[in-house]
Amino acid sequence: MSTEAANPLSGDWYLEQETFGYVQGAHVRQRLARAQTSFQAIELIDTDLFGRCLILDGALQTTEWDEFMYHEMLVHVPLFTHPNPRNILIIGGGDGGTLRRVLEHPATQPVQVEIDPAVIDQCRKYIPAISNGAFSDPRAKVVIGDGFEFIRNRPAAFDVILVDSTDPVGPAVPLFEEPFYRDVSQALTDDGLLAAQSNSPIYMASQLKAQLSNLRAVFPIVRTYIGLVPTYPGGVWSFTIASKRHDPTRLSLDDLSARVASAGLTTRYYTPQIHQAAFVLPPFIAELVGSD
Amino acid sequence: MSTEAANPLSGDWYLEQETFGYVQGAHVRQRLARAQTSFQAIELIDTDLFGRCLILDGALQTTEWDEFMYHEMLVHVPLFTHPNPRNILIIGGGDGGTLRRVLEHPATQPVQVEIDPAVIDQCRKYIPAISNGAFSDPRAKVVIGDGFEFIRNRPAAFDVILVDSTDPVGPAVPLFEEPFYRDVSQALTDDGLLAAQSNSPIYMASQLKAQLSNLRAVFPIVRTYIGLVPTYPGGVWSFTIASKRHDPTRLSLDDLSARVASAGLTTRYYTPQIHQAAFVLPPFIAELVGSD
Repeated sequence: MSTEAANPLSGDWYLEQETFGYVQGAHVRQRLARAQTSFQAIELIDTDLFGRCLILDGALQTTEWDEFMYHEMLVHVPLFTHPNPRNILIIGGGDGGTLRRVLEHPATQPVQVEIDPAVIDQCRKYIPAISNGAFSDPRAKVVIGDGFEFIRNRPAAFDVILVDSTDPVGPAVPLFEEPFYRDVSQALTDDGLLAAQSNSPIYMASQLKAQLSNLRAVFPIVRTYIGLVPTYPGGVWSFTIASKRHDPTRLSLDDLSARVASAGLTTRYYTPQIHQAAFVLPPFIAELVGSD
Repeated sequence: MSTEAANPLSGDWYLEQETFGYVQGAHVRQRLARAQTSFQAIELIDTDLFGRCLILDGALQTTEWDEFMYHEMLVHVPLFTHPNPRNILIIGGGDGGTLRRVLEHPATQPVQVEIDPAVIDQCRKYIPAISNGAFSDPRAKVVIGDGFEFIRNRPAAFDVILVDSTDPVGPAVPLFEEPFYRDVSQALTDDGLLAAQSNSPIYMASQLKAQLSNLRAVFPIVRTYIGLVPTYPGGVWSFTIASKRHDPTRLSLDDLSARVASAGLTTRYYTPQIHQAAFVLPPFIAELVGSD
């Protein structure tokens, strides 16, 4: 058939084309900023549908519109799994959405290590709604540096470590590998746990499998869960908790509900019921996740 | 900024642009067929990522790659909610994926009413993997006609009615409205139930709300659930069961597991645990769904 469709796109579109033959995009209202740092290309755009968006090295990282889904699931699932999370380390997460949710837990003392100060600066300037003042909170400590270096020689310093990184390409690759997870384990307390974004269970199955294999080499309890993130390719994302003692799937609804009520926070995605349901994986995902 | 990105797409792409400023698409390997019937435009394409795809009036309906997610959730959730589903009516579903899953339940006697015979013909010719022989099954009865007309004057004829329609635009609009649901109720047995695709909970919130309002005007039990469908905009889809007696959320895991074991079918998405988890909605979706 000689019926190739005419390109229907007119105007300015942000298009993200994946190598495997998939594209998605949003109509751009305004291109706000573009900067090249020694680490990456940073772009900020405003779109009709997703509001303002952060793009790093051509990959959409977060949007005003659905950041709450990703950040609530990255933060609240591990922080309600740990019975008393106080000392929290965030690696990456320069947009501030993770820090903001950690601060919603009243007893936390978060430290954030971000390698590229320009990400924080640009996000505070152009997408302040995501951090929502978190960087000015007196409880928050922000360190500019390499998270991999930072955690070395800090034994048993943290109850929870959150890895809010870009995908495993370029500078973020070491954050998905076994040497880093060994250092993370040393930096965690005896009952500490790690939570990390763990790629698309739809389009990045091989990366997810490799990451889980590396985590299982270090941690006795490794549990993958999923959450909706419509602006990411496939619309669903995976997260993984790697833990020394506490199993996020062994918490009763009553216990979870008591912890959530005690924290007194407001959510739009996370609930105790969602916590439990997020670990229920359809067989086609459970197969690639495997088990301990 | 004057940094409008160059269109990165080269080659032949199937692009689906939504009015709200979102686009997604797949690289086309081959355009297989195109036909215009009195009902709609039918297109079949082969893509790198999704395999073969059915497109009706410019909207992607189903793909070889992820049809199992949509069809298993549309069929198995209601059929395992009903304790003894025998007489099943399918309205729409010309690709055959729904019929195939109904036939996997050993005791069913399905009748399918499809308005456009060309959809069945084209799908049997170009995407036979979806129906997988279902149309040749001696238990299946296929009627070419209008589902809305078909169910009138068939009182108490069906245990389960499945509406596998296109979105509520054009010819499918009546299938989302109260008069149709009144007829459905009459065509159901005393403990019968309806399951229908109920639009994107992400991008079609107003259509979902309107449909639920229409269902609640007729049925005492209306329950919405969600499932992943990566090729649909937003990556997640909603389905709704409207029921006279059986509540899909009140089934214990033991009961569900016994029913699934008794049916003896193989699934890649549905499990008894997924059945329960699919009704757990994040607050931003639960809010628009509301309650009975």
